[in-house]
Amino acid sequence: MTKIAVLTSGGDAPGLNACIRAVVRAGHYYNLQVIGIKRGFKGLIEKEFVSLKPRDVSMIINRGGTFLLSAREERFHHYEYRKVAVENLRKEGIDALFVIGGNGSFQGANLLVKEFDFPVIGIPKTIDNDTYGTDYTIGFDTAVNNAVDAIDKIRDTSVSHERVFVVEVMGRKSGFIALAAGIASGADVTLIPEYPFPMHVIVDSILQARKRGKRFSIVVVAEGVASGKEIAEILSEKLKPYDFGGVRYSVLGYIQRGGTPTVYDRIIASRFGVFAVEEYINGKKNIMVALENGKVVSKPLEVSFGKVKKPDLSDFELNNILTL
Amino acid sequence: MTKIAVLTSGGDAPGLNACIRAVVRAGHYYNLQVIGIKRGFKGLIEKEFVSLKPRDVSMIINRGGTFLLSAREERFHHYEYRKVAVENLRKEGIDALFVIGGNGSFQGANLLVKEFDFPVIGIPKTIDNDTYGTDYTIGFDTAVNNAVDAIDKIRDTSVSHERVFVVEVMGRKSGFIALAAGIASGADVTLIPEYPFPMHVIVDSILQARKRGKRFSIVVVAEGVASGKEIAEILSEKLKPYDFGGVRYSVLGYIQRGGTPTVYDRIIASRFGVFAVEEYINGKKNIMVALENGKVVSKPLEVSFGKVKKPDLSDFELNNILTL
Amino acid sequence: MTKIAVLTSGGDAPGLNACIRAVVRAGHYYNLQVIGIKRGFKGLIEKEFVSLKPRDVSMIINRGGTFLLSAREERFHHYEYRKVAVENLRKEGIDALFVIGGNGSFQGANLLVKEFDFPVIGIPKTIDNDTYGTDYTIGFDTAVNNAVDAIDKIRDTSVSHERVFVVEVMGRKSGFIALAAGIASGADVTLIPEYPFPMHVIVDSILQARKRGKRFSIVVVAEGVASGKEIAEILSEKLKPYDFGGVRYSVLGYIQRGGTPTVYDRIIASRFGVFAVEEYINGKKNIMVALENGKVVSKPLEVSFGKVKKPDLSDFELNNILTL
Amino acid sequence: MTKIAVLTSGGDAPGLNACIRAVVRAGHYYNLQVIGIKRGFKGLIEKEFVSLKPRDVSMIINRGGTFLLSAREERFHHYEYRKVAVENLRKEGIDALFVIGGNGSFQGANLLVKEFDFPVIGIPKTIDNDTYGTDYTIGFDTAVNNAVDAIDKIRDTSVSHERVFVVEVMGRKSGFIALAAGIASGADVTLIPEYPFPMHVIVDSILQARKRGKRFSIVVVAEGVASGKEIAEILSEKLKPYDFGGVRYSVLGYIQRGGTPTVYDRIIASRFGVFAVEEYINGKKNIMVALENGKVVSKPLEVSFGKVKKPDLSDFELNNILTL
Repeated sequence: MTKIAVLTSGGDAPGLNACIRAVVRAGHYYNLQVIGIKRGFKGLIEKEFVSLKPRDVSMIINRGGTFLLSAREERFHHYEYRKVAVENLRKEGIDALFVIGGNGSFQGANLLVKEFDFPVIGIPKTIDNDTYGTDYTIGFDTAVNNAVDAIDKIRDTSVSHERVFVVEVMGRKSGFIALAAGIASGADVTLIPEYPFPMHVIVDSILQARKRGKRFSIVVVAEGVASGKEIAEILSEKLKPYDFGGVRYSVLGYIQRGGTPTVYDRIIASRFGVFAVEEYINGKKNIMVALENGKVVSKPLEVSFGKVKKPDLSDFELNNILTL
Repeated sequence: MTKIAVLTSGGDAPGLNACIRAVVRAGHYYNLQVIGIKRGFKGLIEKEFVSLKPRDVSMIINRGGTFLLSAREERFHHYEYRKVAVENLRKEGIDALFVIGGNGSFQGANLLVKEFDFPVIGIPKTIDNDTYGTDYTIGFDTAVNNAVDAIDKIRDTSVSHERVFVVEVMGRKSGFIALAAGIASGADVTLIPEYPFPMHVIVDSILQARKRGKRFSIVVVAEGVASGKEIAEILSEKLKPYDFGGVRYSVLGYIQRGGTPTVYDRIIASRFGVFAVEEYINGKKNIMVALENGKVVSKPLEVSFGKVKKPDLSDFELNNILTL
Repeated sequence: MTKIAVLTSGGDAPGLNACIRAVVRAGHYYNLQVIGIKRGFKGLIEKEFVSLKPRDVSMIINRGGTFLLSAREERFHHYEYRKVAVENLRKEGIDALFVIGGNGSFQGANLLVKEFDFPVIGIPKTIDNDTYGTDYTIGFDTAVNNAVDAIDKIRDTSVSHERVFVVEVMGRKSGFIALAAGIASGADVTLIPEYPFPMHVIVDSILQARKRGKRFSIVVVAEGVASGKEIAEILSEKLKPYDFGGVRYSVLGYIQRGGTPTVYDRIIASRFGVFAVEEYINGKKNIMVALENGKVVSKPLEVSFGKVKKPDLSDFELNNILTL
Repeated sequence: MTKIAVLTSGGDAPGLNACIRAVVRAGHYYNLQVIGIKRGFKGLIEKEFVSLKPRDVSMIINRGGTFLLSAREERFHHYEYRKVAVENLRKEGIDALFVIGGNGSFQGANLLVKEFDFPVIGIPKTIDNDTYGTDYTIGFDTAVNNAVDAIDKIRDTSVSHERVFVVEVMGRKSGFIALAAGIASGADVTLIPEYPFPMHVIVDSILQARKRGKRFSIVVVAEGVASGKEIAEILSEKLKPYDFGGVRYSVLGYIQRGGTPTVYDRIIASRFGVFAVEEYINGKKNIMVALENGKVVSKPLEVSFGKVKKPDLSDFELNNILTL
């Protein structure tokens, strides 16, 4: 009987449990045995393997986080440990490894392909949505909804005090969360790492909005651009001459990453998981699952390496129109 | 100065306000005057027109319902009243009518095109997502998330009492909500109008799930198939010989239709609204905006008439796998 | 070592898990052994006993339902089965039984006291808040918040269509949920079993509200008065002469009972559980825990029997003022 | 006709709108005219007065923030500006001022009593719940629920990575939010300004919890003790010798202050508002409304001055038991 293993790697994202569940149940449906590996690559090295049957993934589709846990593992950067990992997999009779992870995890897993010819299937997840080669990564929709729920709350305060509010969202190198959160929360200005622009543009936007009669302002900034605090301090200085309720900031942080996954994340995670198993059944390997133009497809795993997925500039134009 | 009018028609859907806001601000951005028409076609006949400026649509992107209101209007089925409607539009100097509505509203609006050559732009909304010609209609994502939030709550009770629970969701002719809610909530069985199947299949599914060790069951049924009550009564009878915590049902009803729109609905409503105005600016008319393979496009308004959009059968297969 | 047992009985309520957790951890803290009994009185008869240690109740403070499960058990009405129950408890070396339940469960448990002199401690829970002798029962705050969340959503629709909306909430004999939900959602009229009033009063309230310029109406009805459907049909008939957006109804049902408990329910359930153990440690038995004037106290178990807890009439007066 | 004025002052809190609504409608019910003053004491000085009728406070019971707005006003510290304020009130024919505010606002308002014999009624609000003389202040329940919702999300991440997580909540001088959030979220340690304790106690608690098998830890800290960042850095250092998933922190910030008020806050705000008007009608003045042992009462306004309301130490004991 064919045996597959599944692990989650890197930062957690809402929908991971739904995806593990889908891999386990699809595996079972197609008569595969499924092994869960705890703590990502760490568990691969330390052989923390658990058998997973359909009942073991019951009642988790709506849980945030990953019940297989995740951990950093520096040792995986070294050949000898990757060798241990593959030996563990082979000793257990495992035929393929399903990695639910981001770009970095895919590159790590790909070394098992290159060095040991061990079959790998990647399923993209990251709340940042910045994996090249797929229009969507598991967790993004929930993360943005979490961010926007928070901004909706902050706006209550902002309006009551007629303030300028700077909200720092996640995104070290990537502005997808910021951009979507900015559009969906009616932000006056959104700052993302991919397209920087000078501070006076922000100040101008806010001043013009006040002239148009707007009594409060929301600025959304991706953490990769600057901290919310920095932006708030600069704005506070520049806006001093004008009569405002002051400038405040909030760092949304980890609340974006947790919580019950949205319907979209549950369904896409389920589709990705089932499709990944089906592609494997059909003989594919060393691929990643992806969403492209609304369809779930698969591609060579390397597609995503060394390339940068950028938000569409036209979204800025959209935001400019909408914040009039 | 060119003048456009916008109205919302038919059952309300989360995201309508975000869409009105987008039409108003895009209109303003492109130097159009925008008139809001209250209570849909009723306000067209009774000339309930209000001027809409960017500040008038402030703080509504996150509000459910429609601040332009909606109403049934039988008179619009008669030529003489449609004539009044067009006269009102022309007297006011309005050059085009933007209708945010479903299939029925589009057909009504299309009569203004056919009979009076009055330009119309349609923007599709309905929580049912069953408008032919577009992959998505405003309100669907929020409606399904509302339904799944409710089912998540119901599952707590269901599990605690080891019950079978029948949940009736909206969808008179259409199973999109039921199908998505079923997948996202891990339902054992989902019943939709498009693909009926006999009761014994449902009973078998539930009995087999119990044999596999599952201690509770969720059945999702679209209102168009049968009432939750009917299904629950039949199941209650058929499952009597077995040791269960009983069968209960719940009708989710109007809570699906209301509430703060999700990020997806806010963004798609915003995109649809801005794109609709831009297409008009570019000389298009008598079109509907649509989502197709992940892109916002426009099509002749008639595309959607007389055709039925059906869910993909493969989603049933997916559900079968996932509920193992 | 002293040994106590804990069970949950009757309809589930948000906060049960938090309360079990508190009993288990307080037991451990005071060097008691704690046994969980599954499926309430059923598990008592069938001896479904599990040992509960502090780690076994980890991560459940925020889960709805009860992980000890609940079930109906007709046999407990018969002396011979209660005898079996007590024999099971004694064979296991259990010194006292903690019952997290409502009025009926307390009366059942009290028979163990009367007939077999077996010590019992009651902790009141029911979403209805109608247990005599305590100002509060676990689950009420969450249930009302669930109801009001739903009504907030329904209001979006109601306003958009300028409708009258009848919302049926839980409460077969008791109006606490309806009354609180009515005040918190700004209902025009609230109907509860304790203080019935004729239909023309409701119609008058709605008509007068329209005269005052209100464009929609919410009527909250406890299920014990009449079904939402009945009330809606009567109103629909009576309001026909007037120009309204029509009358609709919604039955909130089981969504009130489930879901993540609110902070108040988590804290009160925790306090009740710890206090119950402490009272037992201090030599008290055959008592119920209660909230009285903001303090957690204990009382003889029988206090609650045969008496009816009624809402304060002054709350109606409050509602009349607030819905102006 | 008697005329009263109402304003909101200081930091906003969920439930302010519900309270304004209650004052306006109770005023109307008892045949008073009601004037709203915008931007707190600032609007008093600048005479930003608006007439408020029952319809003007429609649809706001569930809105966060305050539609009357709030602002800082340094000028109110000076006698000459307070004189202007009272002159404005008298010119407008206003007989009493209702101040929905915290301790500081009450002291400010009390100067109008002392210096000009102008009647004032105080209604306590602050998310911190630290106003002496009342068991509850409007906004606290919502703030804690907001905090706990966020911590529930953070726990998903914390568990998945087996981390120690430090969560900084609001409370500069007061630990009520931290303490309630700590109990309700199952925090391992809670740090509040009123009862400081040394760092090694925290480290010990976490290490002992790990020994008992706990795989993650939540530390809740009120901002008045130290920043979440500082605590996290110290813990990170001290826990380095042990095998952990690392230490992270999150500052919840302004999301605690906003959002839809809970049922409890809507009802208590409504009760406070109506009761305040009724006490005035009954001849009381220069009082504050308060909650005491579960009842709404009134007291001399000065009761709250110069005294510190502290959390009950027994809540720490409770938390120690619950986090076993």
